[in-house]
Amino acid sequence: MSEAHASARGGRSRRLLFSAFTTVGVPNNVPGLWRHPTARHLDHTDLRQWIELAQLLEAGGFDMLFLADQAGVYDTYHGCADQALRDGIGVPLGDPEVLLSALAAVTDDLGLTFTSSTLQELPFNFARRISTLDHLSGGRVGWNIVTGYLDNAARNFGLPQQLPHDERYRQAEEYLDVVYRLWETSWEDGSLPRDARRGCYADPAKVHPIDFHGGFYDVEGPHLVEPSPQRTPVLFQAGSSSAGRRFAARHAEIVFLIARNPEGASVHINDVRQLAQANGRRAEDIRFIQGLWFVIGSTEEEARCRLAEIEEWVSFEGVLADRSAKLGIDLGAVDLDAPVDEALIRGVQGTVRTIRDGTPDRVQTFRDLAMHLLSAAVVGTPEQIADRLEDWAAAGVDGVNVMDVPTHWAFADFVEHVVPVLQQRGLMRREHVSGTLREKLGGAGPRLLDRHPARRLRAVTQSTRETAPLG
Amino acid sequence: MSEAHASARGGRSRRLLFSAFTTVGVPNNVPGLWRHPTARHLDHTDLRQWIELAQLLEAGGFDMLFLADQAGVYDTYHGCADQALRDGIGVPLGDPEVLLSALAAVTDDLGLTFTSSTLQELPFNFARRISTLDHLSGGRVGWNIVTGYLDNAARNFGLPQQLPHDERYRQAEEYLDVVYRLWETSWEDGSLPRDARRGCYADPAKVHPIDFHGGFYDVEGPHLVEPSPQRTPVLFQAGSSSAGRRFAARHAEIVFLIARNPEGASVHINDVRQLAQANGRRAEDIRFIQGLWFVIGSTEEEARCRLAEIEEWVSFEGVLADRSAKLGIDLGAVDLDAPVDEALIRGVQGTVRTIRDGTPDRVQTFRDLAMHLLSAAVVGTPEQIADRLEDWAAAGVDGVNVMDVPTHWAFADFVEHVVPVLQQRGLMRREHVSGTLREKLGGAGPRLLDRHPARRLRAVTQSTRETAPLG
Repeated sequence: MSEAHASARGGRSRRLLFSAFTTVGVPNNVPGLWRHPTARHLDHTDLRQWIELAQLLEAGGFDMLFLADQAGVYDTYHGCADQALRDGIGVPLGDPEVLLSALAAVTDDLGLTFTSSTLQELPFNFARRISTLDHLSGGRVGWNIVTGYLDNAARNFGLPQQLPHDERYRQAEEYLDVVYRLWETSWEDGSLPRDARRGCYADPAKVHPIDFHGGFYDVEGPHLVEPSPQRTPVLFQAGSSSAGRRFAARHAEIVFLIARNPEGASVHINDVRQLAQANGRRAEDIRFIQGLWFVIGSTEEEARCRLAEIEEWVSFEGVLADRSAKLGIDLGAVDLDAPVDEALIRGVQGTVRTIRDGTPDRVQTFRDLAMHLLSAAVVGTPEQIADRLEDWAAAGVDGVNVMDVPTHWAFADFVEHVVPVLQQRGLMRREHVSGTLREKLGGAGPRLLDRHPARRLRAVTQSTRETAPLG
Repeated sequence: MSEAHASARGGRSRRLLFSAFTTVGVPNNVPGLWRHPTARHLDHTDLRQWIELAQLLEAGGFDMLFLADQAGVYDTYHGCADQALRDGIGVPLGDPEVLLSALAAVTDDLGLTFTSSTLQELPFNFARRISTLDHLSGGRVGWNIVTGYLDNAARNFGLPQQLPHDERYRQAEEYLDVVYRLWETSWEDGSLPRDARRGCYADPAKVHPIDFHGGFYDVEGPHLVEPSPQRTPVLFQAGSSSAGRRFAARHAEIVFLIARNPEGASVHINDVRQLAQANGRRAEDIRFIQGLWFVIGSTEEEARCRLAEIEEWVSFEGVLADRSAKLGIDLGAVDLDAPVDEALIRGVQGTVRTIRDGTPDRVQTFRDLAMHLLSAAVVGTPEQIADRLEDWAAAGVDGVNVMDVPTHWAFADFVEHVVPVLQQRGLMRREHVSGTLREKLGGAGPRLLDRHPARRLRAVTQSTRETAPLG
């Protein structure tokens, strides 16, 4: 936790973005903590608890709530989902979109960001639902684009197993091509005169089919929903593999990082920014939000005691079940103390790379690897935590994804103890920022920048019905 | 409007169910009325207006809000969607599920029912979202099952055109088989001990994959969401074709009727009930809700004047665009004054049958047919309206789907003027009914009856992994 301690002190300080990261399930960034005493009355199916949480985050200065997701169970460990069920790891897991919509009704400013894979929903219906949610929330929607990595998820949608990694990204490219066309080109600006005298609610000359025919999807259109405040939701991406970074460099406005330390974050940030520039975008078009969790004490010693108490609740078998799914290797069937053999790992290779880049000397065995897949904890007094966040900021990080460790109510502690210090130092905003989520996160306006590939698409016109290739 | 006037007076009076019927778009049960003065400030993308409406309905004694839907545009008339766009008929049209979820957060009792076709969403994801919504709303979800009938909708989901009518129903049967297994068999009762001491959040011995392999879908499971209050949402159906009635007789708990008069409703009700009994269900297992719209005056003359005023705003071309899509025939390309040739009609044949059953003498030409596809208006004083509703009740109808004519705010007039009279006569409840939507609508408990086909499915067990055929 202290690797980057002194390095960047005195570096430029700047306001960070704050996201609260959880799932519509048992908090499981650290497996086993559902048994922690603070989790006793937690019920992810209870809307009142979610309303309370959302209003706490909004009042507490958070920019958004982020609900991660996956569309299948973790059944790699011992070849079944038993341990995942026992520890509530990724199952049960509710749908983030309907929860965020409910929270839109009881908040005014909070950004509403969720993960949806290009596997689980057909692009026409997805685009329509997201446009509706963007309307209803006044333009507060963000989408974390993932391609999925679980065989069980693939088998929930008719495939025998997940597509090969690069083919998943090809499918994701095509999926984006479809939804961009629906969001950006199907309805021109000014297509909705709502002119009662002329009898013209929508102007047919300005509403276009997309007539998309690809390798994975055929979609006629037009989009069923008129342009929402942001048209395209704010685009997030979290992959750290080579294909994932290339994808982020083309499409993402915000990248979620899980670097081990500020130096690791810098490497990742520079890599993606260079790729983005090669795609006709600019370095500043992409912002980076680092996942961290916090253990807060009135003294450093108290914080360290708290961490030790939390660690007592970790489920080691739960960790193995979680990591087995993410690595694509059954950690119940290998010698945990053997050296890591990367050839055995089918899963999230970018994650392994991130870990080994950040802490090469610490990850020798499978056991080390399993235990290091957790994102970094920041342990200390509020002032020490603020110091650490200045280090991350100095390394180029634009924001923090605060994780729900040990439970959702970690956000309440963060708001009560850390936020005032951050605000005093200018690391966190004090005032609501008006406008859409894109604007709240630092965008110049409600819409994607002109140089984003989605904005370079051309509408199908009645006369030509020709489509321009994406990008 | 007066066909059934005197027939059933003095018949048994009983409490009716009340549903408010609209869409996430321009109210379009009567095309053109978006230009009506009461529609001036209506904006279906404004969540605040929806919250106001939902709270009005809840306070006003309505049992549920029903949001109809379709996943494509009406492009049959003149072979394009131009007129549908000009009159806002079915386009723009937002997603009902996220709107209902938002309304769940600001209501306590109102039922939340929507249409979703078996075309637009993959069953695994659909089942998961609905379970989540049923949790968040405390068991208030209803699903109107449709198979879709628009070629454009089919082309939004990769098909060259809609499947033939009977094959659509076969697909719908399989879709239900999948979602029933996810909702009813994947998680046993008692599968969620949440026992921190034993380290058992969910009990793996009681959570099962569904291992479904069919002609349309392959779905492994398990369901990702634990059992919601109703497990399966209340099942609605609206089709009136022969295949539609058979489907309703097997699956529906509530059938939406669009009969021309109480006698027509009786015929339809008896038909479906007989079919249900042949399927091992009982006549009383299915309830029937008739679509009606209301024009209210303090005198009958005032009401008739109001109807005349409303009719002035009807868009005749809008009517033709709407009817062309529903009938599957371009009414812009036929002689409207020619006798109806049913051989030309590809579309909603059950609807044609309903119309001709109810008003055989009035439907001679295509023009008659177009104008009679609208559901029946009830015009008069609140007392006269209550009389008419007694006639419908006496004919066996269990409830009324109040339509948004001329706009959503028709519900406000209904609540203000008609509800007190209905309550006085015992035709409408005065008190909130506790429990799930299924219970509010008259069910014996939160779950489907044991004799419903979904309850006769057996879980896949780890030892056998065999699936029982549906029904």
